[in-house]
Amino acid sequence: MNYSIIVVGDEILIGQVQDTNSGFIARQLTPYGWQAVNIRAVADEGQAIFDAIDEAFAHSDVVLMTGGLGPTKDDITKPTLCRYFGGRLVHDEATARNVEQIVAGRHLTINDYTRAQAMVPSSCRVIQNQCGTAPLMWFERDGKVLVSMPGVPYEAETMLVREVIPQLMAHFSDNVDIEFRHLMVVGIIESALAMQLDQWERQLPQGIHLAYLPQPGIIHLRLTGMSTDRQWLKREMDRLDQELRDRLGAHVVADQDLPVAAIVGNILRERGLTLSTAESCTGGNIAHEVTAIAGSSDYFMGAVVSYHRRVKELQLGVSASDIDRCGVVSQTVAEQMATGVCRLLDTDCSIATTGVAGPGGGTPETPVGTVWMAARCGDRLAVQCKHIPGHRQRVISRATNDALLLLLSLLLETR
Amino acid sequence: MNYSIIVVGDEILIGQVQDTNSGFIARQLTPYGWQAVNIRAVADEGQAIFDAIDEAFAHSDVVLMTGGLGPTKDDITKPTLCRYFGGRLVHDEATARNVEQIVAGRHLTINDYTRAQAMVPSSCRVIQNQCGTAPLMWFERDGKVLVSMPGVPYEAETMLVREVIPQLMAHFSDNVDIEFRHLMVVGIIESALAMQLDQWERQLPQGIHLAYLPQPGIIHLRLTGMSTDRQWLKREMDRLDQELRDRLGAHVVADQDLPVAAIVGNILRERGLTLSTAESCTGGNIAHEVTAIAGSSDYFMGAVVSYHRRVKELQLGVSASDIDRCGVVSQTVAEQMATGVCRLLDTDCSIATTGVAGPGGGTPETPVGTVWMAARCGDRLAVQCKHIPGHRQRVISRATNDALLLLLSLLLETR
Repeated sequence: MNYSIIVVGDEILIGQVQDTNSGFIARQLTPYGWQAVNIRAVADEGQAIFDAIDEAFAHSDVVLMTGGLGPTKDDITKPTLCRYFGGRLVHDEATARNVEQIVAGRHLTINDYTRAQAMVPSSCRVIQNQCGTAPLMWFERDGKVLVSMPGVPYEAETMLVREVIPQLMAHFSDNVDIEFRHLMVVGIIESALAMQLDQWERQLPQGIHLAYLPQPGIIHLRLTGMSTDRQWLKREMDRLDQELRDRLGAHVVADQDLPVAAIVGNILRERGLTLSTAESCTGGNIAHEVTAIAGSSDYFMGAVVSYHRRVKELQLGVSASDIDRCGVVSQTVAEQMATGVCRLLDTDCSIATTGVAGPGGGTPETPVGTVWMAARCGDRLAVQCKHIPGHRQRVISRATNDALLLLLSLLLETR
Repeated sequence: MNYSIIVVGDEILIGQVQDTNSGFIARQLTPYGWQAVNIRAVADEGQAIFDAIDEAFAHSDVVLMTGGLGPTKDDITKPTLCRYFGGRLVHDEATARNVEQIVAGRHLTINDYTRAQAMVPSSCRVIQNQCGTAPLMWFERDGKVLVSMPGVPYEAETMLVREVIPQLMAHFSDNVDIEFRHLMVVGIIESALAMQLDQWERQLPQGIHLAYLPQPGIIHLRLTGMSTDRQWLKREMDRLDQELRDRLGAHVVADQDLPVAAIVGNILRERGLTLSTAESCTGGNIAHEVTAIAGSSDYFMGAVVSYHRRVKELQLGVSASDIDRCGVVSQTVAEQMATGVCRLLDTDCSIATTGVAGPGGGTPETPVGTVWMAARCGDRLAVQCKHIPGHRQRVISRATNDALLLLLSLLLETR
């Protein structure tokens, strides 16, 4: 199925807000074999919205629209949708009740703005917004569908997953079943993996295909299958999934699309191990990635961000003379940080980083982008040095990822 | 000037990569009074790119295109540009030398892919890419301009600011001077600020206007002036900037668009104060925001992420009986964490957070989204409780921002 995304909002066009809804939508729909032919952002302006819808329908059967529904924008998008699909704005009692409930849940009172949210085009079917006041609207014309969704990412994302995608699938692929299998693979580069799977991939049955989604240091393999024969599909997918696992063995680290921090976390939880981090150049970002995962309190004890040399010495017990001798960005300091934080916070495992994130602080021996990282698990210690090109943010985020991968590979070695 | 942005890349349409270039471009050009009429993403497909260019030129005088220039994609975008603007692919010696230099700087060797980067349409003027191998290309037709830029954000952003914008301004607004003044304002909500400045804003001279760019807890005011009379413009802008400062007094915290962590950092550096953080629910994200600012090692000593209760007690000296009595998410724990980390890492100032980021861990008394935060500066302590709706990521990022703003307001009180 071909679809288009229209992102409505002046705030996108002036760059004040970064649109993330289109990427989220695409990530959700691509696995179903749906193809975005066009993503476009337009102003809060009736004719621009009208033209964008018209052009989108010329190239696709489904249009997903986000934004343009805030209380102060209501006077533009909804009348434009009436103009395009017919009908007029009418008061919808179910929407009014939903708005009341949402507003009450936020300990606020209804005002004219929120009240106006209950006015919807008579030509649409409302999907009640479970997270906000702007109703979702489903329009149909000539067998094509437009769904208008709120612009707030939390609302758009939640409602897309809970309601919009299931309803779209029910509408457009009534008799077709879709199944997915995911494998996260480490320790092998994409071209080598592609060579290894080449023959196998050519023999996939009709309706089943394999996608490579490489991320830094990790590859996400996704098997998508579609068929009207539910039982055959499930059996085939299970068989192919198992074949992939047999071929890739220990390289497979997870059976769903997860951040590295979540994969590490799952292994730690499974084995009853605890984790701490000791961070210099990553400045707390590894701890942040680890704690961004719900349930990380099961295994994550805490972190010491030892930005200043004194904190490395006094808190983590790094030897002052070793710092003087080897420099603060060195293998020995990374190792001592990893060991020190395990001792200090009494954990089984740890990750440590020390490097030059830049733009200042580089030297000929230790240029900007140099990062030493160490991981500890019980008695075992792994250490590596990376030279990461790019600006400060990139050095920090790549070092964070690489350091988590270092612990992951250590955990895999010791299983 | 009206302009359009075209983002080229299958990876955008399948949601594998989040486009951030369009937002960056818009943020840079909006202050010059340039209006994006259209932002669209299209596939790595010749006809789609051709049609997108054609449609963009129908509505705007300038088209900025990013992506579609990677070594493996070269065979699509460049021939399409030749088809649209005429000419054929030719070897460009200056580009070849630039590619060699960039590749050598990365300690890599030239291969067929990178060598192909030196083939460019004869109808373009090359702008050498200072950060990567894909050359930027400037095309003109019927007085309109298209600039093709690499998709890698670091390269696109750097080259946009260094070369593309200055060249566009020189090309299109030859005799017009443009000046900006920025004021970051805290402690006053947008509607109150708008009321306070309403009269003043109405009297702004022709060619000078004020924009409000509200962010959570902080408002960015931007004064933009354009005139052919350079001296008059500079004098007027200085006068108006001063008038704004006089009216807003202590609410003005910075004279450029900066993250809160940078504003806090500048004040700390100015006063010779040091900072540490003690983080529970924010899990290191405050330290990460602080250290994302280049030069933060001038004032930031380090952090303790006390995710586990034991770390709060043993490292930060939070009273076990107070935790039992008041709960771990409480005013007293936040205060003791802020005080404890100042003592432990020997700093003048600190920020502390303890809360429930969710989705689990909430109770009727302390629901998900409850965050206690404290800031310390010398002997003074500020504390507040926030109830942040939304999912885990949102609770973490809003709590980070609010906690930094709490320290900022404490710093402003004590100046």
